[in-house]
Amino acid sequence: MDEMTTDHRFMQLAIEEARKAEALGEVPIGAVIVKDGEVIARSHNLRETSQNAVTHAELTAIQDACEAVGSWRLEETTLYVTLEPCPMCAGAILQSRIPRVVYAARDPKGGCVDSLYRLLNDERFNHECDVSEGVLAEECSAMLTDFFRALRDKKKAQKRAMREVE
Amino acid sequence: MDEMTTDHRFMQLAIEEARKAEALGEVPIGAVIVKDGEVIARSHNLRETSQNAVTHAELTAIQDACEAVGSWRLEETTLYVTLEPCPMCAGAILQSRIPRVVYAARDPKGGCVDSLYRLLNDERFNHECDVSEGVLAEECSAMLTDFFRALRDKKKAQKRAMREVE
Repeated sequence: MDEMTTDHRFMQLAIEEARKAEALGEVPIGAVIVKDGEVIARSHNLRETSQNAVTHAELTAIQDACEAVGSWRLEETTLYVTLEPCPMCAGAILQSRIPRVVYAARDPKGGCVDSLYRLLNDERFNHECDVSEGVLAEECSAMLTDFFRALRDKKKAQKRAMREVE
Repeated sequence: MDEMTTDHRFMQLAIEEARKAEALGEVPIGAVIVKDGEVIARSHNLRETSQNAVTHAELTAIQDACEAVGSWRLEETTLYVTLEPCPMCAGAILQSRIPRVVYAARDPKGGCVDSLYRLLNDERFNHECDVSEGVLAEECSAMLTDFFRALRDKKKAQKRAMREVE
């Protein structure tokens, strides 16, 4: 096996987080925040479990990282996330001054880093990020596609079962 | 005194929240979320006190409102906030499906509802909001201007005091 790069290694941890979300029936998205080569926060999407709209992987990881470093400024950190951030999470990245963001798959429907907007690279805001995309993108993309396919299959099976009962 | 409209009444409560932030030395921004004529969440900016980058008034109000209704969907609610929301808070409004947002003053440097972007009215996202602006805008704007002026004066006085010590 080729030696994995640092970015691949940390994205693998973000994928592990996404798998925890999947195990709970949540859309599989995971994030980790790294400082000086150490993971200071790791989190996964918990929207359904928590019934709290803001519990996206990135947002809770940012909250945990602020607690870990004792500051709202997450200087010298890198955030790894399996899917391109939404407007809320891109905004939280700006608010916490994270200097570098690495994401795996693009989100053409809601992504605000490259797809619909480029919120992390707008010089009118008081912070801009260095962004890398595409790290383990295929794996992260397949994880989401498989999840939504399984969800559709489950709903179809439920409908069939309902019709049989009627 | 003229009878205040409902929007004015709830914006007054948001201003009360902002004053709580100010008393803590925080940038004075407050928010309330209303459902069926009742306040279900009220919050103020706590970034410095909490040292947590995501503790903007709107975001914590949304978290509290989700807890209050037991759902990540804040249907049939209105969010009142003293300043035009930033990208993070605008994104959290979309994520929580809040149908109506009323804000007081525009934020030309970071506002993402009308000033820099119109995130709450982009049909590519899976939610759009009805937005009203300008309710008690002068009062909210003056509150912020006064806060930043006092902060500058304090810093100048500190510098003078430092020079006298040297």
